[in-house]
Amino acid sequence: MNKTPDFSKTIFALATSLGSGSIAVIRVSGSEALTLTNRVFEGKDLLKVSANTIHYGKIISGDKEVDQVLISVFHAPHSYTGENYIEISCHGNPLIVDDIMGVLIKEGASVAGPGEFTLRSFLNSKMDLSQAEAVSAIIQAKSRAGIQNSLEQINGKLAKEILAQKDILVGIIGLLEIDLDFAEEDLGVTQSDELVLRLNRVMESLKRFASSYNYAKFLNDGVGLTIVGETNAGKSTLLNQILGENRAITSHIPGTTRDTIQETIVIRDILFRLADTAGLRETKNHIESEGIRRTKSQIARSDLILLVVDSSKDISPRSKFLIHETVNSIESQTIVVANKLDKGANKKSSEYLRSLGKPVIDISAKNGKGMPNLIDEIIRQVSTGYEKYSDELIITSKRQKEILEKTAKHIQEAITLLKNNGGFEFAVVDLRQALNDLGEITGETVSDDILNHIFANFCIGK
Amino acid sequence: MNKTPDFSKTIFALATSLGSGSIAVIRVSGSEALTLTNRVFEGKDLLKVSANTIHYGKIISGDKEVDQVLISVFHAPHSYTGENYIEISCHGNPLIVDDIMGVLIKEGASVAGPGEFTLRSFLNSKMDLSQAEAVSAIIQAKSRAGIQNSLEQINGKLAKEILAQKDILVGIIGLLEIDLDFAEEDLGVTQSDELVLRLNRVMESLKRFASSYNYAKFLNDGVGLTIVGETNAGKSTLLNQILGENRAITSHIPGTTRDTIQETIVIRDILFRLADTAGLRETKNHIESEGIRRTKSQIARSDLILLVVDSSKDISPRSKFLIHETVNSIESQTIVVANKLDKGANKKSSEYLRSLGKPVIDISAKNGKGMPNLIDEIIRQVSTGYEKYSDELIITSKRQKEILEKTAKHIQEAITLLKNNGGFEFAVVDLRQALNDLGEITGETVSDDILNHIFANFCIGK
Repeated sequence: MNKTPDFSKTIFALATSLGSGSIAVIRVSGSEALTLTNRVFEGKDLLKVSANTIHYGKIISGDKEVDQVLISVFHAPHSYTGENYIEISCHGNPLIVDDIMGVLIKEGASVAGPGEFTLRSFLNSKMDLSQAEAVSAIIQAKSRAGIQNSLEQINGKLAKEILAQKDILVGIIGLLEIDLDFAEEDLGVTQSDELVLRLNRVMESLKRFASSYNYAKFLNDGVGLTIVGETNAGKSTLLNQILGENRAITSHIPGTTRDTIQETIVIRDILFRLADTAGLRETKNHIESEGIRRTKSQIARSDLILLVVDSSKDISPRSKFLIHETVNSIESQTIVVANKLDKGANKKSSEYLRSLGKPVIDISAKNGKGMPNLIDEIIRQVSTGYEKYSDELIITSKRQKEILEKTAKHIQEAITLLKNNGGFEFAVVDLRQALNDLGEITGETVSDDILNHIFANFCIGK
Repeated sequence: MNKTPDFSKTIFALATSLGSGSIAVIRVSGSEALTLTNRVFEGKDLLKVSANTIHYGKIISGDKEVDQVLISVFHAPHSYTGENYIEISCHGNPLIVDDIMGVLIKEGASVAGPGEFTLRSFLNSKMDLSQAEAVSAIIQAKSRAGIQNSLEQINGKLAKEILAQKDILVGIIGLLEIDLDFAEEDLGVTQSDELVLRLNRVMESLKRFASSYNYAKFLNDGVGLTIVGETNAGKSTLLNQILGENRAITSHIPGTTRDTIQETIVIRDILFRLADTAGLRETKNHIESEGIRRTKSQIARSDLILLVVDSSKDISPRSKFLIHETVNSIESQTIVVANKLDKGANKKSSEYLRSLGKPVIDISAKNGKGMPNLIDEIIRQVSTGYEKYSDELIITSKRQKEILEKTAKHIQEAITLLKNNGGFEFAVVDLRQALNDLGEITGETVSDDILNHIFANFCIGK
């Protein structure tokens, strides 16, 4: 994408997924979209048809037929981009897509940059920046909760919340400025207290939005889950229990695992990425530091560890050493899985495990006993602190999170100034900065550089 | 697909390629397509909008929003299937596609069988069977020539040719039947000769169509190409020369190589599949039968062999043995590539290579000399006997080829009977059978079993 996108250009890109399918869709947008496509279309005159209509015909290149297509016609400003806009639905053969693109290039259209359709939509005020970011997020979302959240953002939920907080800030700034203009003396204590109270509420809201980002990461990127334990502890059996209960769900989500070697699984709408524990199998034979180091490196990338222990027998000092290392040396959340309940529990082992300060769940991976408890605990662990977000706004963009934190900091500084009854002018400067920052979320005050950065992460065709 | 597809059912399937994209398209067809979709669509009343129009809105499930979509509305009989027909264009996330499909199932729609949309199109007389088969072929075509040919079939070229031959047969049958009805005596020699001449022309046409199938296989499946030779002969350099000249073309065809480990390359619109010659690298160290056996098995699956020999030096007896084995033991076409022209040709080697009875091309893989000749020879080898098809009808379906051969055989039998002036009634029976056979190509006389067999090979969503 150019630093300053050239809107005089008419752009195109494949909008559907690459590969073979019954149909593929190429989108074309720009002032020339209709005239340009019309020149290579054998069928109705696309310049004379009504908007939002579909027309059957042929794409031709010279006197050669390229494909039989359906053309959807949209007129500016009532299109995705706000420009004249065409969708060409052709046979889903990559060679045909390639040929039609060749024809479009010959007619003067340009290949779209990443996210350029959505960028044009934003710049044509069809959506604000938070909505544009949600369009990218919804395509990449790995869970239904993530999709729901992106849909809400596309519907403008974030923009609305931001606007509400901005309104409060504008009101407060107004009050402070009146005082600055008309009264030389300090504000009354009561009034100042009231303003601080209001600012605190705004700040807390913004902080809460910002902290929801971690939950969004869970929703969209999934939870890294690693099963750790000695060879005889029952790791594989446990894995099969988890997969067995949930594989049906996984298989309904074609595409989610295709590009990765990691196995993924969806449990109660949350995506889990199962780390390959192959490297941990040797732990039994490597008590030395190298083995521990490798184990640590493996689980350091996880969000949640299931530490599986055979609790039907005494736990050897060697095992205790390993368990201790795992539980204490990493920041990830850990659930201790006391396995082999079917063989009867060993009281000493059970007591030892409960002394670790981590949740302990008794199960039998063999007969499935205790599995519902374990699943409950897994969900509880990964969603701890996030229950509050279930009906709330969730921030999916790191950029938005950083803006919210920056804004909250400016408000905090204003609060400090107001509390100390000093430098109201400076408080206003801080609050104005906060207002400006918030504008970056919806894109009112955003710079070209930031725009380019945001849309560079979109896929082409979006 | 059921043996007898239930047309009362409204069916749906993903029409675009699986995976992430900006958009995905789900097609819905059947008498309930509009009413059913309308129940889960928040937007305009789809029952009241005009045909061939597009409408923005939301797919809802209960009070939950599933996605924002564009709905294209088509009315029977003016749709792909000839039925009421909807296309839902949603965000290209597989989870969303999954959810929308779930909603459609809940509303009573059924998952489409392979090719069921096109089957309905055929059964509703929107296209004949040869056109339907071409729809599947065009999606799978691996070359532009294959696509062009499928497009011609979609446009009815085969059906037209078949109709023309059928008309001639009908005329001849008519003449024979008049003779049988009104004249007890034999036909005059001249008239009989004239009919045989005409039948011969029909038979030759059908045979030519049938033989074009092998060319179609080349067009659609590509040519298996293996480069054989000893380690020092310059195989890799040659491969790079070929790839270097043509890689640009390959890279324009995303998707063609994605699902296979084989490298594919397009040379002058013909697709070549380069067999992995890794297994042949050891040939030098394995003159024993096992090495030869593996080489043979590797190249037996190829259509064309490039046998690369370092012709700048004497060819060792061991090499001659290998060359001899390669040239004589396989049925594939072989081009002898006399490499290392840059080092000067060895007269004795050159003579030996020319004694093998295979085309020999002198090249330098190092500096590229002779490469155009080699490419010409490759194209000549794979298209030998096919030049005549360049502007002709090409059969892409094995089924069609078999029908054409069967028909030609019946006509041959009729000719034999006519030539021997015996059994005109039997000749008529044969010709009627031939007529019936031809009807299977366009689907007039096809059985349900054959239909099911044909469409079972379609992808779902087509």
